[in-house]
Amino acid sequence: MNAEQIITVELGDRSYPIVVGSGLMNGGFDLSRYVAGADCLIVSSETVAPLYLNRVLPNLANKTVTSIELPDGESHKTLATMQKVLDALVETGANRDTTVIALGGGVVGDITGFAAACYLRGVAFIQVPTTLLAQVDSSVGGKTGVNHPGGKNFIGAFHQPQVVMIDTDSLQTLPKRELQAGLAEVIKTAAIYDLEFFDWLEQKMPALLAREPAALAHAIRRSCEAKAQVVAEDERESGRRAILNFGHTFGHAIEHSLGYGEWLHGEAVAAGMIMAAKLSGIAENEMSRLRALIVAAGLPHTPPEIAEHDWLQAMGMDKKVVAKRIRFVLLRELGSAYITSEYDEERLQHLIGASA
Amino acid sequence: MNAEQIITVELGDRSYPIVVGSGLMNGGFDLSRYVAGADCLIVSSETVAPLYLNRVLPNLANKTVTSIELPDGESHKTLATMQKVLDALVETGANRDTTVIALGGGVVGDITGFAAACYLRGVAFIQVPTTLLAQVDSSVGGKTGVNHPGGKNFIGAFHQPQVVMIDTDSLQTLPKRELQAGLAEVIKTAAIYDLEFFDWLEQKMPALLAREPAALAHAIRRSCEAKAQVVAEDERESGRRAILNFGHTFGHAIEHSLGYGEWLHGEAVAAGMIMAAKLSGIAENEMSRLRALIVAAGLPHTPPEIAEHDWLQAMGMDKKVVAKRIRFVLLRELGSAYITSEYDEERLQHLIGASA
Repeated sequence: MNAEQIITVELGDRSYPIVVGSGLMNGGFDLSRYVAGADCLIVSSETVAPLYLNRVLPNLANKTVTSIELPDGESHKTLATMQKVLDALVETGANRDTTVIALGGGVVGDITGFAAACYLRGVAFIQVPTTLLAQVDSSVGGKTGVNHPGGKNFIGAFHQPQVVMIDTDSLQTLPKRELQAGLAEVIKTAAIYDLEFFDWLEQKMPALLAREPAALAHAIRRSCEAKAQVVAEDERESGRRAILNFGHTFGHAIEHSLGYGEWLHGEAVAAGMIMAAKLSGIAENEMSRLRALIVAAGLPHTPPEIAEHDWLQAMGMDKKVVAKRIRFVLLRELGSAYITSEYDEERLQHLIGASA
Repeated sequence: MNAEQIITVELGDRSYPIVVGSGLMNGGFDLSRYVAGADCLIVSSETVAPLYLNRVLPNLANKTVTSIELPDGESHKTLATMQKVLDALVETGANRDTTVIALGGGVVGDITGFAAACYLRGVAFIQVPTTLLAQVDSSVGGKTGVNHPGGKNFIGAFHQPQVVMIDTDSLQTLPKRELQAGLAEVIKTAAIYDLEFFDWLEQKMPALLAREPAALAHAIRRSCEAKAQVVAEDERESGRRAILNFGHTFGHAIEHSLGYGEWLHGEAVAAGMIMAAKLSGIAENEMSRLRALIVAAGLPHTPPEIAEHDWLQAMGMDKKVVAKRIRFVLLRELGSAYITSEYDEERLQHLIGASA
């Protein structure tokens, strides 16, 4: 399949299309008509710009394009890096009609979207995600932001893009480990929302790992559709949207305890999903299917060794909060999730004690 | 009049009250019921905190209150100072239910509101403005932000407060020059929106300068009402809201050319209003009334000496932009303003040439 497929995120006057397909770069899809003014700034990274910057320029015919490169990696997802984007906007004389384009992975997208949200109290932006994780997760839904030493994504804004352009061709250069980490969020989407998609993933995992364009496009499209539906119901995460955090409470604790970057986000979420499924108490055959799919994707299914005390602290369950209990996303069964602060404490104790 | 008066800013689910009166501090008005969670952070300044922090605490019964002080002055309205507020929020373990309270003038309010907009992608905040300028202008309407070396308020967000509490008693300690600068925005509101209010100001200017509480409360209430109506029609300034910028194109050029802080914002706006009224070509008797009221408030009615080239550059009318013409807020007559890029070029030339 080479034709693009279009998903719409329904958010009233902030609605926008997600375009998924092969051959969209090199002018295959016209981004210019989403650029209201005459000029745009492309924000990319040291890794991605050399690969794809020149391939995106033909998609911006008749526009004045400038670009900057940010340093790579989660450690640079800071207010200081975001300020570099703002400086570049000021230097190029950007005005209210300027469009900012994020070309890269989740870090580039999150920083760029936040800069666009803040510049002149909000200018338009476009997402061109080039990693699987960004394509199925961070580029959809309007969450933007940077980290604070005190916590991940502590500083940010909700700011929806004008359009998200996902060219599956960009996945051909993605390191294998990052491809697998992206698949963790794909599996998550199926596990919480869509049993039929879960079945499909069980069939197609080898094709996905072999980077077959049609399989990748279907997985991305289905993930984006599901996320778009959840976001349309609850844009600012006051309730239901939190089901997207399945596996993330344990996952964040893993990332936090090991130090960010040791395990990739998707890897931590994979092990976290197994833990959350166990806490849910789903049937053993479903448990086995989830574990098998995660293993098939080449992802870890057990957490690293973390002391019980560190688990509790990393999940915000220190003495002050333990009284309140925290909220988990649990599975009713494969394909259906719910949010609750009613969970089996013994099971939790066993899960975090057993891994120590 | 000691009873408080309440104005509502109508913005759907973001609607909020502005409470104006004498004796609201020291527990005269219950702020606690606008604080959803158990704790709040008061952000104030080195000047205002010693005067009013202890007088606001009784308004927050049963809440856990922490506070920080920011350095005073427009030169500190930066991303770096905003980050101090974020650091304080992280240090105090603030969560999504925490409320941030701005206690001070416009700089404190703008920085604090922006920090509240960004922390965890948005937490609640409350405005307790203590200068006349903040009371009649910056605390109403949801514009928050900080300066960039490249431009004033270049970085920010629209973020509406839960409530604005305006105690006219706080004006008793305000330096006279700042009181007068605040009156410039009051006069502006009357000039663009409300001839009856303009008549009233002509009568009551001596009472306002003598800080009579009833007169101050009426002037503030009427200014807030007018601004609330304009903002309700056009929250994000895509059109009509820009009439609030009457006098500001020339005013900003004055501030920019002299260096910010040389003239107070209100002083620059006062001289800017005279220039904008001249560009409008209103009747000579109305021109005289506007000039007389500005003079009665102790405000400058002529701009400082600025070279024509500097005027043009500061107004963004360098060679690149001159072709487009810029948009001015002009008066049809006293009490009625409109936005236009159709203006008399000869008059403009005369205005900025004549002052050089």
